Amino acid sequence: MAFEPTDYLPYDFANRRHIGPSPEEMQEMLQVVGAGDLDDLIDQTVPKSIRQEVPLNFGKPKSERELMHFMRLTASKNKVMVNMIGQGYYGTVTPPAIQRNILENPAWYTAYTPYQPEISQGRLEALLNFQTMISDLTGLEVANASLLDEATACAEAMTMAQRVSKSKAKAFFVDRDCHPQNIAVIQTRAEPLGIEVIVGNPDKMEASEVFGAIFQYPGTYGHVRDFTDYIAALHEHKAIAVMSADPLALTLLKEPGEMGADIAVGSTQRFGVPMGYGGPHAAYMACKDAYKRSMPGRIIGVSIDAHGNRAYRLSLQTREQHIRREKAMSNVCTAQALLAVMASMYAVFHGPKGLKAIAQRIHRKTVRLAKGLEEAGFKVDPQVFFDTITVDVGPLQAAVLKSAVDEGINLRRVGESRVGISLDEATRPKNIEAVWRAFGITRADEDFTPEYRVPENMHRTSAYLTHPIFHMNRAETEMMRYMRRLADRDLALDRAMIPLGSCTMKLNSAAEMMPVSWREFSRLHPYCPVDQAEGYKVMIDDLSAKLCEITGYDAISMQPNSGAQGEYAGLLTIAAYHRAQGEGHRNVCLIPMSAHGTNPASAQMVGWKVVPVKSAETGDIDLADFRAKAEQYAETLAGTMITYPSTHGVFEEHVKEITAITHEHGGQVYIDGANMNAMVGLARPGDIGGDVSHLNLHKTFCIPHGGGGPGMGPIGVKAHLAPYLPGHPSTGGGEGPVSAAPFGSPSILPISWAYTLLMGGEGLTQATRVAILNANYIAKRLEGAYEVLYRGRNDRVAHECIIDTRPFEESAGVTVDDIAKRLIDNGFHAPTMSFPVPGTLMVEPTESETKAELDRFCDAMLAIREEIRDIEEGRIDAANNPLKHAPHTVEDLVGEWDRPYSREQACFPAGAFRVDKYWPPVNRVDNVYGDRNLVCTCPPMEEYAEAAE
Amino acid sequence: MAFEPTDYLPYDFANRRHIGPSPEEMQEMLQVVGAGDLDDLIDQTVPKSIRQEVPLNFGKPKSERELMHFMRLTASKNKVMVNMIGQGYYGTVTPPAIQRNILENPAWYTAYTPYQPEISQGRLEALLNFQTMISDLTGLEVANASLLDEATACAEAMTMAQRVSKSKAKAFFVDRDCHPQNIAVIQTRAEPLGIEVIVGNPDKMEASEVFGAIFQYPGTYGHVRDFTDYIAALHEHKAIAVMSADPLALTLLKEPGEMGADIAVGSTQRFGVPMGYGGPHAAYMACKDAYKRSMPGRIIGVSIDAHGNRAYRLSLQTREQHIRREKAMSNVCTAQALLAVMASMYAVFHGPKGLKAIAQRIHRKTVRLAKGLEEAGFKVDPQVFFDTITVDVGPLQAAVLKSAVDEGINLRRVGESRVGISLDEATRPKNIEAVWRAFGITRADEDFTPEYRVPENMHRTSAYLTHPIFHMNRAETEMMRYMRRLADRDLALDRAMIPLGSCTMKLNSAAEMMPVSWREFSRLHPYCPVDQAEGYKVMIDDLSAKLCEITGYDAISMQPNSGAQGEYAGLLTIAAYHRAQGEGHRNVCLIPMSAHGTNPASAQMVGWKVVPVKSAETGDIDLADFRAKAEQYAETLAGTMITYPSTHGVFEEHVKEITAITHEHGGQVYIDGANMNAMVGLARPGDIGGDVSHLNLHKTFCIPHGGGGPGMGPIGVKAHLAPYLPGHPSTGGGEGPVSAAPFGSPSILPISWAYTLLMGGEGLTQATRVAILNANYIAKRLEGAYEVLYRGRNDRVAHECIIDTRPFEESAGVTVDDIAKRLIDNGFHAPTMSFPVPGTLMVEPTESETKAELDRFCDAMLAIREEIRDIEEGRIDAANNPLKHAPHTVEDLVGEWDRPYSREQACFPAGAFRVDKYWPPVNRVDNVYGDRNLVCTCPPMEEYAEAAE
Repeated sequence: MAFEPTDYLPYDFANRRHIGPSPEEMQEMLQVVGAGDLDDLIDQTVPKSIRQEVPLNFGKPKSERELMHFMRLTASKNKVMVNMIGQGYYGTVTPPAIQRNILENPAWYTAYTPYQPEISQGRLEALLNFQTMISDLTGLEVANASLLDEATACAEAMTMAQRVSKSKAKAFFVDRDCHPQNIAVIQTRAEPLGIEVIVGNPDKMEASEVFGAIFQYPGTYGHVRDFTDYIAALHEHKAIAVMSADPLALTLLKEPGEMGADIAVGSTQRFGVPMGYGGPHAAYMACKDAYKRSMPGRIIGVSIDAHGNRAYRLSLQTREQHIRREKAMSNVCTAQALLAVMASMYAVFHGPKGLKAIAQRIHRKTVRLAKGLEEAGFKVDPQVFFDTITVDVGPLQAAVLKSAVDEGINLRRVGESRVGISLDEATRPKNIEAVWRAFGITRADEDFTPEYRVPENMHRTSAYLTHPIFHMNRAETEMMRYMRRLADRDLALDRAMIPLGSCTMKLNSAAEMMPVSWREFSRLHPYCPVDQAEGYKVMIDDLSAKLCEITGYDAISMQPNSGAQGEYAGLLTIAAYHRAQGEGHRNVCLIPMSAHGTNPASAQMVGWKVVPVKSAETGDIDLADFRAKAEQYAETLAGTMITYPSTHGVFEEHVKEITAITHEHGGQVYIDGANMNAMVGLARPGDIGGDVSHLNLHKTFCIPHGGGGPGMGPIGVKAHLAPYLPGHPSTGGGEGPVSAAPFGSPSILPISWAYTLLMGGEGLTQATRVAILNANYIAKRLEGAYEVLYRGRNDRVAHECIIDTRPFEESAGVTVDDIAKRLIDNGFHAPTMSFPVPGTLMVEPTESETKAELDRFCDAMLAIREEIRDIEEGRIDAANNPLKHAPHTVEDLVGEWDRPYSREQACFPAGAFRVDKYWPPVNRVDNVYGDRNLVCTCPPMEEYAEAAE
Repeated sequence: MAFEPTDYLPYDFANRRHIGPSPEEMQEMLQVVGAGDLDDLIDQTVPKSIRQEVPLNFGKPKSERELMHFMRLTASKNKVMVNMIGQGYYGTVTPPAIQRNILENPAWYTAYTPYQPEISQGRLEALLNFQTMISDLTGLEVANASLLDEATACAEAMTMAQRVSKSKAKAFFVDRDCHPQNIAVIQTRAEPLGIEVIVGNPDKMEASEVFGAIFQYPGTYGHVRDFTDYIAALHEHKAIAVMSADPLALTLLKEPGEMGADIAVGSTQRFGVPMGYGGPHAAYMACKDAYKRSMPGRIIGVSIDAHGNRAYRLSLQTREQHIRREKAMSNVCTAQALLAVMASMYAVFHGPKGLKAIAQRIHRKTVRLAKGLEEAGFKVDPQVFFDTITVDVGPLQAAVLKSAVDEGINLRRVGESRVGISLDEATRPKNIEAVWRAFGITRADEDFTPEYRVPENMHRTSAYLTHPIFHMNRAETEMMRYMRRLADRDLALDRAMIPLGSCTMKLNSAAEMMPVSWREFSRLHPYCPVDQAEGYKVMIDDLSAKLCEITGYDAISMQPNSGAQGEYAGLLTIAAYHRAQGEGHRNVCLIPMSAHGTNPASAQMVGWKVVPVKSAETGDIDLADFRAKAEQYAETLAGTMITYPSTHGVFEEHVKEITAITHEHGGQVYIDGANMNAMVGLARPGDIGGDVSHLNLHKTFCIPHGGGGPGMGPIGVKAHLAPYLPGHPSTGGGEGPVSAAPFGSPSILPISWAYTLLMGGEGLTQATRVAILNANYIAKRLEGAYEVLYRGRNDRVAHECIIDTRPFEESAGVTVDDIAKRLIDNGFHAPTMSFPVPGTLMVEPTESETKAELDRFCDAMLAIREEIRDIEEGRIDAANNPLKHAPHTVEDLVGEWDRPYSREQACFPAGAFRVDKYWPPVNRVDNVYGDRNLVCTCPPMEEYAEAAE
């Protein structure tokens, strides 16, 4: 009967769109893994003792259309004002070509961190452009490819200064003209590390008493000062000088390098990245060449590939937490890659002339505004400024601020009697007139006599952005093609599965992503009056409530803007709690050997001593060792950090014993939320003894990885810890802030919120179940060919599995690297390499991959196993085979072919698409060469010329 | 002085973003072409006699940011209502994944019509899916890949019926239940062709007196009737039966093929394509196999490539106007490719089960609505319906309509006393309740007892969408990758210049494109009350005024939704004018041999006799021949159709003589606007004697080609013709309509409007000047290697140039096809082939290509010339060389290589990118095979299986 309703639900987002395997495919897969049905498999896999009792209930899930409607409603509750608050956040004009081709393009936003350089040359080039831009603008030799925000960059600069300074002093000087959020985050960071922070007037700074100092440039209230003499004084005492500088101002003003600064940090937000109520945007850090090996964050470097051709890569990775653990330069893991790419494209789009013209316009507008106020009798301060001024209005402060709001403009409250005004690229003449009206002045923004308020000795005289990339033809046609070419060089989730263990790469659906572009979310200043951000409040409250229900916690802080930040914030919260209990001496942290590198790195940041706990044969935490250590440190135990399910991809049975033992000895339990996607709807960290967890919204909750960020790492805590969550100067109350903005990177929260709204509680739970099914399916299909290292009960794995490739090193000289690179030929991003066990691959398929894609991957892995066997059994040379030469490029096909395997085998192994094959642009990248010959800015023009010959 | 303003204007869209060559590049280019400056070159090129005197002045151009602000303001003047008007336009839910990855993706929207199949396999596959979907749903063997709108499809069906019918009758029967716009457009079309249109009740139809008939299904007022008997009667008299059918209804209702229909037409708008105030959306046409060679429009077929692999292509092109001219099946040239792709993806996205479920839901909602009304005592008609009902409300019609509007809902005014209500995918329970309220009923949309209003004999019983593509895994991850894979197979403007003579492929900037997605533009029903479309009115009025100023005409009609439609509408306007002057007998049209094929095809459609005029040696119109013909036909001369500058790419000096002679002999002058991009700001068709012109907004005014549509072809006319412009039943007044909607495809007008606003008068003029510079630069660089066929004064070409490749056929056996295919290896879409001169290439670079891209193209052409020379001089075999084997695929590299040229030469000739090379997915496609073995639906599953082996 045609009209009798079928049971097909066309708008069921969870089961039809988000979850990869269709119901029919799931049946086939269950048969392969040997489970009757999904319930069965889950019962076999997840210990009953930890299962949550009440299923998630978020009401009826929304269809995509209902979601868009609801999102629009929510968005409309935010008020889009002209924001002239400044304080590190400015209006900017995102070129539509960049918005459409980068921010709204899955090829860019679904990419992973460029650990596999051969498939990441596009974004590596864009990020190298970013570094070159920063290096040029700051006048410092080396720059990294982005930190989380300006305030955390300031804090990182402080700890870096401490690392490199030869001064014995224990204090760090902070210019009182630094943005308040920078000062606050520095203070938060300093406290557990025992650094004394001196906030003051640089004139009063005692250089001999500090290991370093930081100056804001221009100052938060607009002052443009020359720090050359202060810096010289610091250097005299072997102290390190840091400047937090606005990169746009640096197109006109004497640059930090010229003043002698050792380190510069700042935000590139105003390079075309919307304010987004606080983020995400990319902060930068640059330093003198001498200090580069002590710099935190990702650094892109130039190396060569196996054929000697130029290739980009992440360099100096040995500084990072995933290798150095608690000895790392920082716990920073996520960067702000997507936003750094946008900012670098903005610089390419405008070039040095364009950036300078923009800065000049802003300055001229600011001068006009100031003159208008001065001519009306107001006292404007400072006299030397770039884009920001303050006006003393005495007791009329509130009246002026309100009057400005009535004009649709937010100004800044400064002290008790002043009002701050910052201008930007987006300020129009009518905005200037409106500001005047707020001050009771009626006049038109006619042309004043041109006048500049910066003395000549503060002018920049050096060239910048001289590299050809910033002088390319900037017609949109050319820009569009450049962005497309770069995107095409990379392999992202929009073309193939990225089966990264512990770095869930699930679908970032278009419906979830769309609201991010909306002006009602993107145009809010983080410190705007709260009544202008009602939509954000509704969203944050509801998402927090849902996350509480999912985790079993009682309160959430949205402030941490990355997973590692979440860990750090969580440990700070525990520390504050201990202090409040009079147990401030507790400073030992038990961490299993298999933990993510961020764990010990974060523990180190709160001044804790890391005590590693052994793994048992099974891969589980060695319970005896754990108990022994807990007892040993009972007096000083601050906490335990565990990951659940474990980084071995197993639901450990005795997790509740671990948490109980910790509590018994006075510690608090931090459960790393990295693997939360194996728990949502099935088990709750709060129920199994966790006191704090962070949630990787950019993994479990669908925020895309953006090629290495943005991320969000909110933390959930039990009620007893809630009072100790991070506060923020802009909102008052709570402990010291960890991020520049009160809610971290709120403009990407719509993605996670949308995900929960589209999925509903049942859908989220089903996603978890299918993630487990997909992982077990892969484990099963690879059985016989590879050994799966750890398994839980009933021989099941959780949402990921570790494949042991170590035996092949001995049997065939094949390394895990060879397999990873060979997978590129098969059309895949490699699984996570050598974590948590060196020489292994950790595979996490996620729920949103289809059976066909899983099979393509398994076929590739099985074919690789056969290629290894060919070596083992002597059928092919151990040094000259497809694994050792992987990945293969088109260039390999074009030239002479003298290898003992065919071109066909080289380029079209199992799994590789035929017509739609992804071709890496370079052969295997030489890591050693890159680290030995470190080049972190775009190579000079001559090299391009040479290459062309 | 850092602060002294530079002269760089960062927001100058015209000169920095739209126009390709930078000022510095232009200097270099001018030197090459030998002109002092751009003024010089233009003076040398464009005859003084035709230059316009007053420069365009549209006020200060907007920056991209100002544009977005202004567009938002304009958009906010449109009111987004719940539209339940029906009449061929329905609410629909565009899946966000399709919106983002197709509609908003330059890879899809900047592609050209797939004339070069090797670089168009992606969209050809999507369009083949479209044909398969249509063929399946209608139950007819062959479908084309879209017509302009349902109404024109009805008219096309009528003329097709006349072509294939063996009946001698001269009348065509039209079901009075056809949508009014369908009837009106049929009538417009029929009149000049001498077809009598009988509108009536099918019960009264005399099958013996007609050559064909058309029935609407379901009828415009909702009736679902079985036409089987009528169709049988028609067949008895050798007449052709056409059904205009709603494809969504066909998932539930007995299909046209089952009723015996010969042809089916309809709109696929409700397959995920927003209403857009009337368009664009893709209409379809399907027919019995026997009639396929008489079908108008593009038909995608399956063929093989040089290696015998499956490849798609446009088939049966010999039916089309560009080959058959006035004997073509239709003047249709533009299709609605982008929208057909969206509709086909919607079908893939939902699959047969999903579509059926959607249709069932709509029906159930309609039944509920009807029952609610019936239970309140209203008389609902019909009793058998799918999604549309009417209610007799007597004298309360206006009150109910207004009351509905107050509820935010548009209903349909039917006759004097009825109200029509159509439901759709987007109708929510609360909308149903609101409709009830408009009828004074207060009740909740509770669950009625399920009930269906279609008798069983009207149910569909056959299967549809059985092909595997409609059963692919429909998780968004998979869909996203499928869309990306298809996009990657194609070469569009986002990767390389498309130097197509007479088909301007200029930048479609992101800022221009963005508003198209906005709901305030996309959600309006074409027949909504005019006060709800104020924003559209503001835009259409302003754009019309600007187009008048640009063309020198006095009035504009936005109705024609393609260039060819514009021609047709323009000729109808002339014909109506002649009639009004008592000169209705005038029916001769002078058309130069070099005209676009659409010209004679359009003339044929208005019943005119085409008299060709010779070209002189110079390529100009042979003035003596023209004068002679004009004199010969002085009594019956209706008009002259010319293109200016000529299709030879030359500004003919004596154009004013041509227009004067025409007027002298009582004719009107139609100036084809195809080359308007060489005139904007420099010369105006209205000033040189034109009476009518169409403007290709999708060429000159930046609407992207969308892979073969949408387009817009508004016409400008002199004041004396204004009263005879096409009218529309929905607006009243004027002549018969040519399109379904009063303003054609208005939802893409923001693109052209934005272009004019961003460029300003000066920018538009500069674009024209640079287009001429770019063409002359290419002509100059190719000098010596190729002969440029026609040149104007001072040996200059206009905005394009014709390169003569005929000599190589003799000298080396190299055809123009060989060169076109070889250009694919170089990374280019070929220029226009064999138009207007067989065996030549017409190159049009447009102003938005940079010097580097022009050089890349010239380098490629010069390298090809050398390859030809190698054959000419015997250095390589005439049958076995890179030209004959072009294009080369990766597969060529993989296999054995036994050719007398290297792999390197094959794949990396001059101009080809090295790392970023575009690889065609197939080798040269076999056209003859394709036409001989016509397959126009997706090949069956078994073939895929065979291919896999």
